[in-house]
Amino acid sequence: MKRKILRFENGHMNPVEDTIVTEHPVTIKINEQEFATMVCTPEYIEDMVVGFLASEGVIRKYEDIEEIWVQEKEGFAHVKTKGINPYYQNFQSKRYITSCCGMSRQGFVFVNDAMTAKTMEDVHVTLSVQDCFRLMKEMQSSATTFQATGGVHNAALCDANGIVLSRMDIGRHNALDKIYGHCLKHDISIRDKVIVFSGRISSEILLKVAKIGCEVVLSKSAPTELALQLAEQLGITTVGFIRNDSLNVYTRPERIRVHS
Amino acid sequence: MKRKILRFENGHMNPVEDTIVTEHPVTIKINEQEFATMVCTPEYIEDMVVGFLASEGVIRKYEDIEEIWVQEKEGFAHVKTKGINPYYQNFQSKRYITSCCGMSRQGFVFVNDAMTAKTMEDVHVTLSVQDCFRLMKEMQSSATTFQATGGVHNAALCDANGIVLSRMDIGRHNALDKIYGHCLKHDISIRDKVIVFSGRISSEILLKVAKIGCEVVLSKSAPTELALQLAEQLGITTVGFIRNDSLNVYTRPERIRVHS
Repeated sequence: MKRKILRFENGHMNPVEDTIVTEHPVTIKINEQEFATMVCTPEYIEDMVVGFLASEGVIRKYEDIEEIWVQEKEGFAHVKTKGINPYYQNFQSKRYITSCCGMSRQGFVFVNDAMTAKTMEDVHVTLSVQDCFRLMKEMQSSATTFQATGGVHNAALCDANGIVLSRMDIGRHNALDKIYGHCLKHDISIRDKVIVFSGRISSEILLKVAKIGCEVVLSKSAPTELALQLAEQLGITTVGFIRNDSLNVYTRPERIRVHS
Repeated sequence: MKRKILRFENGHMNPVEDTIVTEHPVTIKINEQEFATMVCTPEYIEDMVVGFLASEGVIRKYEDIEEIWVQEKEGFAHVKTKGINPYYQNFQSKRYITSCCGMSRQGFVFVNDAMTAKTMEDVHVTLSVQDCFRLMKEMQSSATTFQATGGVHNAALCDANGIVLSRMDIGRHNALDKIYGHCLKHDISIRDKVIVFSGRISSEILLKVAKIGCEVVLSKSAPTELALQLAEQLGITTVGFIRNDSLNVYTRPERIRVHS
């Protein structure tokens, strides 16, 4: 969205037109009941809802959705399911609002995360450090909205050849939900690919990667201690601080080769 | 926390010791009932809880708390109140979990935010652009954990002379809650001060600033469109993209002077 602002530069204050990032609330209704409200960047909303419901364990596959329609302007996504995952229903009462980033202690790893996060014991994908540098550069140069406005998160699903799918969002996990939803709808295999993420690898991001079913996550930023504990439990390779020609491998280094 | 990792640099992979940022879940119990779980950096937890409860409208002043004790290791903060804000109780049933950043459509501006966000019609504080550059630099140089680990948010309460109070946290608003709680406990006036924040000014951050009662928020990053709409409604001056010797004034520019 364009907006008139005042810019101070070279000692002078001048009116200029600036591009501002949009926050758009979308309330998900499942079988006519309110389920959750997400604040997002309004593109690929349907994919985001599909990916979110799958990663929350509400649906197990795309075919569990009988109907889905988005009222973009009104901010609603209506989902009709062919029955709800029975495990999910039992756990829903255990969740609480949080101030920070949508995690409750009950829901946190122990309950619905444990249902949907996948463990990656085998090695289906390896990358060289040069692949890591190249994929990070590709993700960053594809991230045009970030460059125009600052302050959005970018995620890309890649194989060793390059980006397969790239999404951005103002919300930390929405970009990953958009990728997941797209893959579920189009039956794109995930296990042989990697996630490249623009921001910090928090425990939530790590869990989202595990729920999507990727073995490797690359970031230009830092992971947290809790994310690394989960990564070790779940067998996920985390690579962070990818900057120019240096990077850190935090967990499961057998998927990262020094030479091509 | 220290951790052994593999670092690739100058063409070689070597084991090094790295400092990793911690995520610590804290569940708040109010009068023995679970209220919310926050994921935070484990310092100033009591201040954070006080600030969070005040900004959520659960308490109106520090004296509404009869007792508060933190079990840090177990991850609990127990609060005993002298009665709960009656407006708050009516609205609590209207809140839902969210995927993104703790906002529900019901709770969003319309309900409990509208109760606690303050409108700033008058001008109690003005800054020169040089003050903005100086305060941003001071905040950044005080932010040592960020430099060591990457990926935490920093906030500072400042007057024109410099930083009064500076806090950091892994959670986006926790640093602001820590500042607010400290000010409530020690009866520090806020209206004549400004908030300097390291990250993006989202609608949530803007609302938190309004709840704390500051007229001006400075950031090195970008605001969102929704944050700017709220800033205009609430009379808050937003200054973003403060980098070296340029900055953007988005709303209520009468509090920012070009000359000292």
